[in-house]
Parts: sequence; structure tokens; C-alpha cells
Amino acid sequence: MDINMQKIEGGVCAAKGFFAAGIHCGVRKNKDKLDLAMIYSDKRCAAAAVYTTNKVKGAPIAVTKRNIADGYAQAVVCNSGNANTCTACGESKAETMCKSAGKALGIEAEDVIPASTGVIGLPLNIDAITEGMPALAKKLSNEGSAEANQAIMTTDTREKSIAYKFNIGGSECRIGAIAKGSGMIHPNMATMLCFITTDAAIAPAVLQAALSDVVKDTFNMVSVDGDTSTNDMTCVLANGEAGNKEISEIGSEGYEAFKKALFETSRYISREMARDGEGATKLIECKVNGAATKEDAKTAARAVVSSSLFKAAAFGADANWGRILCALGYSGAEFDPTKTDVTMSSAKGELLVCKGGSSVEFDEDFAKEMLSEDEIVVAVELNNGECYAEAWGCDLTYDYVKINGDYRT
Amino acid sequence: MDINMQKIEGGVCAAKGFFAAGIHCGVRKNKDKLDLAMIYSDKRCAAAAVYTTNKVKGAPIAVTKRNIADGYAQAVVCNSGNANTCTACGESKAETMCKSAGKALGIEAEDVIPASTGVIGLPLNIDAITEGMPALAKKLSNEGSAEANQAIMTTDTREKSIAYKFNIGGSECRIGAIAKGSGMIHPNMATMLCFITTDAAIAPAVLQAALSDVVKDTFNMVSVDGDTSTNDMTCVLANGEAGNKEISEIGSEGYEAFKKALFETSRYISREMARDGEGATKLIECKVNGAATKEDAKTAARAVVSSSLFKAAAFGADANWGRILCALGYSGAEFDPTKTDVTMSSAKGELLVCKGGSSVEFDEDFAKEMLSEDEIVVAVELNNGECYAEAWGCDLTYDYVKINGDYRT
Repeated sequence: MDINMQKIEGGVCAAKGFFAAGIHCGVRKNKDKLDLAMIYSDKRCAAAAVYTTNKVKGAPIAVTKRNIADGYAQAVVCNSGNANTCTACGESKAETMCKSAGKALGIEAEDVIPASTGVIGLPLNIDAITEGMPALAKKLSNEGSAEANQAIMTTDTREKSIAYKFNIGGSECRIGAIAKGSGMIHPNMATMLCFITTDAAIAPAVLQAALSDVVKDTFNMVSVDGDTSTNDMTCVLANGEAGNKEISEIGSEGYEAFKKALFETSRYISREMARDGEGATKLIECKVNGAATKEDAKTAARAVVSSSLFKAAAFGADANWGRILCALGYSGAEFDPTKTDVTMSSAKGELLVCKGGSSVEFDEDFAKEMLSEDEIVVAVELNNGECYAEAWGCDLTYDYVKINGDYRT
Repeated sequence: MDINMQKIEGGVCAAKGFFAAGIHCGVRKNKDKLDLAMIYSDKRCAAAAVYTTNKVKGAPIAVTKRNIADGYAQAVVCNSGNANTCTACGESKAETMCKSAGKALGIEAEDVIPASTGVIGLPLNIDAITEGMPALAKKLSNEGSAEANQAIMTTDTREKSIAYKFNIGGSECRIGAIAKGSGMIHPNMATMLCFITTDAAIAPAVLQAALSDVVKDTFNMVSVDGDTSTNDMTCVLANGEAGNKEISEIGSEGYEAFKKALFETSRYISREMARDGEGATKLIECKVNGAATKEDAKTAARAVVSSSLFKAAAFGADANWGRILCALGYSGAEFDPTKTDVTMSSAKGELLVCKGGSSVEFDEDFAKEMLSEDEIVVAVELNNGECYAEAWGCDLTYDYVKINGDYRT
């Protein structure tokens, strides 16, 4: 399906009617670091979200679930510096965030999606947030995406943002996203947050279906350290200002067009999140082909990018394919090791390193040069079926240990 | 049950009728490093083993399975420096190892258990092994346990060995073990090998039942890096020379006595393996109590010692209990976060760090001092039932990255 997708500027403000801002309110001690972000639509939006599967959930998750239960929302407010998780009164503080944002924006508190990221187990300074809210709302602009992005970052080393325009049945629509990846202010846990805005018109239930579907092949295929955060969330706000005919049916042409745009947006952000994993020097992409089922392909791909041993080898630019076979072997995916081929590649070229589960001769010097690039691809051919999946991770480095071994000060 | 267990010297040679040796045969280039080990009993033994669950299995595993299918064996031969995995002719080479050992010992090749540990995907130098075999057999002695232990080590920093005497129905028996832990000669994968000998008389099927049972709560509760090797194996040889009435029934008094001795032996080795994990500076023991089921307790305990984030925090002596709650939360174990308490301790003292899933005030300076010890215990009380489990791991350090990121040279 050709939806004539083109990259544009603007992040979460690229879609019509969306505004964003970021300020320093005081949750963090460092005054140079923004710590409170807001995204706002001038119309109420269809809203959908997916959340962490961790049994220990951040307090904002519960409030977000309640607030978008009716399928609608109009703003997102998110602090960094504190996860508002595992502390007394967490939910009540998340509700206070919503009330305070609603008041500053002149909308219902129940139309605000709250989020928090940072250290677990310390009380959130809610006063700093409520006091900063009016200034934050006042600062909203359609050029505020980068600032909002900065305000949700923790140990991220760069902003993760994207926007596209695309066509749905002749109407030009826009979709944009900002995200934070795998970092933390006090080393704590890799909280993934992604906020997506679109001006496409789409019914809430249909939007949720598209998001739930896309997440399985994008965000859920990223691993930085195997630790599933308590606060992960991806949400989409769709305000319909593009003027397309509302997408109201799962599987319709409009639905597929929107889902494609949502997929590309989510895939871009997922890759950027892996690339900016804590301490990472390179992105690892694993493509598994020839699996008997999609689930087998996904399980296998995710095992490879999650293997500590392979991640350390990638850091050392070591074509240690035995670790890839090993990870495939314990992944639980169905396959026959003796039919498995592995090819490694980067911008420098590609190299078959394993054929039929056994070693093949290759030039180790070239392998090292090739794997020294900042993006490497591991292509696994299982020769066991027709299914394909890809997953993204990063290398395991001294800096990962440094970032997470440092004392919480 | 009091089986009057006492620690003794001798490792795998502590039990009557067992002999061991280690030599340098040439699988490794470094002539100062022993690379071929043998354990031999002067009587044929009941034999039992458990193996890696990795779908990609080392060639020796297949041969061992065939050779002990009848329940008996008389010797173990194991090389380090090469895993004999993912290469052509691996099984035939493992069989050649057995033939060559059988010839040197004057026993059937089918009564030899072969094992290999080291780099995956490179052809094993079988000639070095067959040529070294006569000298190895000649060197067998009842003081050879330490030497055999050295010959199976890869990146292990020390021998892992234990022996006990204990009573079964009035007969004094002995049990001993040597093991290699989580290291590799060429950084490759954490191959765990443990060889246990006992002079207790026990029928093969009963021995297998005891081993399969004990392994679940000991070796299977160790994690160094989450990567399940292709070559893991634990085997027991029981030659009956202690003269006890043969244990022929699962659940009998003799069975329980033997299982207790086997459990303590396996638990000791498991802890040592975790303590000597690659790059480790400390042992982490996680005890989970109050789980609804044993499986929940095990799942929860293993998640904590496997969490990269908590392992890095342990390296930094950081009482970052949020990461423990997070790991419990994604483990899949059934529990209620709001009923969960966490206590951390070491030789320096103990500290309640989380009560009912929320933070409690504690002295951070004391916490850091306490967690700087080389053995730390995380006690999790789920207050959700009666079941208990423990698991062992180690911290995640710069040296882990260094050992595994280095190029295979």
C-alpha cells in the first residue's frame, strides 16, 4: 500500500492542532535540566495506550488507564527525575498532576494522561509540579516538541523524535512522536515512554487496535538490558484535524494506511531507543527469517539482541556467532540448528559466518572492521518456514556498568 | 534427618575407589594450562546426568546420553579449550575420545562419559586428545582431584571442589565434586560442568531421580549472565564401595539421606559457581519466602539474581531495591507488590529497605558499607503463602564486559 509517506519536521507538533512545551519545575535538582513536559491538542482526541506488563506498576499507569477508559484525552503531562512508583500516595499525586494540568489548560482533569520517569521508591515532589504547571501551559507552542522531548529524558544522550506526513484516502495526515529510551536520572530502570500525536481522524477503539498491533512488532522487540520497567507506556492522541473521513473499521483501507504510518513511526523510535540504550556504542538489529511461525521468529530475534554474551561480543566487534546459535538454542523458538545460517553485516559489507549450524571460514580482520561500525545487522535464516521478525538491541559496554553501578546520589 | 555430614578433603577422589588426573595435551596453545581431565572408578558405577536444555547441544552431550542410557559408566574424560559444538564430525570426535579413554583404561568405550568446554564452532584437535590419553590414564591417582579440576577450568579464577562424608543407615559414605563455572577460555559461553562421585550404593534410576530433583533447587538456580550454555552437564558416578545397602527405592530413608548429601554438595558448588561468575566481585544470594507456590518462589528468586540492573547496582554497593521490586514484577511470579518486604544483608549487618512495596527510611551510608562485602543476601518476603526458594548470582562488572568483549584471539 502506497501512502506516500514523507519525513517532516516538528515531532509531536507536526500534526495539526498539537502544541508542546517543557520546563524545569524542580523535581530535579539540576536547574539546567528540564523535568516537566506537556503535549496538548486544541481538540479532544481519540486516545489509546499500551502499558508495561510488570506487576509492579508506576502510579501514573493506573490513573492513565482510568482517564482514557472512555477513549478520549486532550493532553499529556510527564515529569522526569522521579518514577512516582513504590511510594505512598503515588496515585493521588498522579491525579493531582492531572487536576493541575486540567486547570491550567481549562480542560477536564480526566482528559489528561499523566506519566513519570526516574528513580523508584522516592516520594515525588508534587508541589514543584503543580507550581510549575501554569508556566508550562503558557509556554505551549507548535515549536515546543524538542523542549518537551528534553524534559522527559533521563540518561538518554539525545532526543528521539520523528514525524511523517502521509495520505489516507486522499487526505493528507500527519503523525509524530517523541520518546525517551533506556536511561535514568538516578540509575534505576529503563523506562520507555513514547508519546505519539496524529491529526488523522480515527475512532478510539480502532486506534487502540492499531496501536496494540503495531507495538508487538516495534516497541516490544527492543531490549536494552532485559529489565522490563514499571513505568513503560506508549500512547497516541488523534485529534482528527487532518479532515480525513474518520477511520471507524479495523481492517479498512484507511485503517491499514494509518497503521502503516503508525508502524513506521514506532519502528523508527524503537530503533533509536535501542541505539541510545544505556552505555551503548552501537545498534544491533537481528532479522530472523524462515521461521515456522511469527512467534518463533520473534522469540528467536529477541533472544539474540538480549544475550549479554553476544552484546559484549558486539562491543568488542567480535564475530562470535557461537553466541548467536546459543541464544537461538535457549530462546524456546522451534528450529533445527543444522539448517541454520547466520550472516553479519554493516555499512562496511556482509559476511556469512555460520552455514547449517557449523562454522565457515571467514576473514577475521574484515569481520572486526565490519563489526566496528555503529550499526550492525545479524541475519538469521532458519530454513524452517516462511515467517520473519526483527528485533533491536545494543551492545553491552563498560558504560552500562558505570551508569548503573554508580551510587544513587 | 541427621546424616552426620562432615566436610572432608579429596574432591572427586574422596569417595572410595575413585581416581583422577589432569594433563596438558595440546587442545590449548598455552602449555602451562592443563586441558584434559579424567575421573575413573575401579568399579563400574551407577551413573546419572542432567544436561543443558539449549536446543543447540554440544556433541559430547549426545554421546554421554547414549553411553549412560544403560544406567552405568566408569570414567569421565573432559577437555577444556574447545566445546566441540557446532562443528562437523563433533559426535564422531566425542566417540573417539571415549574409545581412546576406554583403551587406555581397559574398559568399554560405552562406559566413558565425554565432555568438552571452550570456544564454540572451531574444530576440536582430537589428535592431541587421543595422543595424550595413555599418559593421562597413567597419571590417575587418588590425589588427582585438584589437577582434574584445573584441567576443566576456562576463565574460572579458582577451583570449585567439595567433599563430605555422611551416613546412610549406619554405613559411612562419601560424596565429592569438582566443577567449572561461568567462564571460557576464548570468551564464549558460560559452560557449567560438574562431576560428582560417591561410593554410596544406589541403583541407577534412583540416582537419576535424586539428581534430577536436586538440580532444580541448586544448579538451575544459578545465573551469571542469563545465557544457557550448549554444553552444560552435571553427572554423578556412584560405585557402591561404601558398602551400604543399595538404595533401590525413591523416597526410602536411604534415598533421603543420599539426596541430602547430594543436595548439600550441589548447593555448595552452585554458590561457588555464582561467586566465581565472570568478572564477579561478589556473590548475590536471593531468598524468597512467603510465596504461594514453590515455582513462584523460584521464579521470583531467579529473576532478582538475573537482573542486569540489580547486578550492576550490587557492583556499585547501591541498595537500589526498586530494581528488586521491578525484577519481581516482570518475573511472572504471582504476588502482591503492596505486601512485599525486602531486607538486604551481609556479614556487616542487615537492613530493611522496603516494606509493603514502599520505601522505608534507611541509613544510606551503612547500606553502602554493608553491600561492599563480597557476599550479599537479598531476602524477599512476599507474605503470600508458605513457599521458599533461593537463587545465586553475581554482580555485573567492568570485567564481565572486558572478558566477553575481547576479541577471540
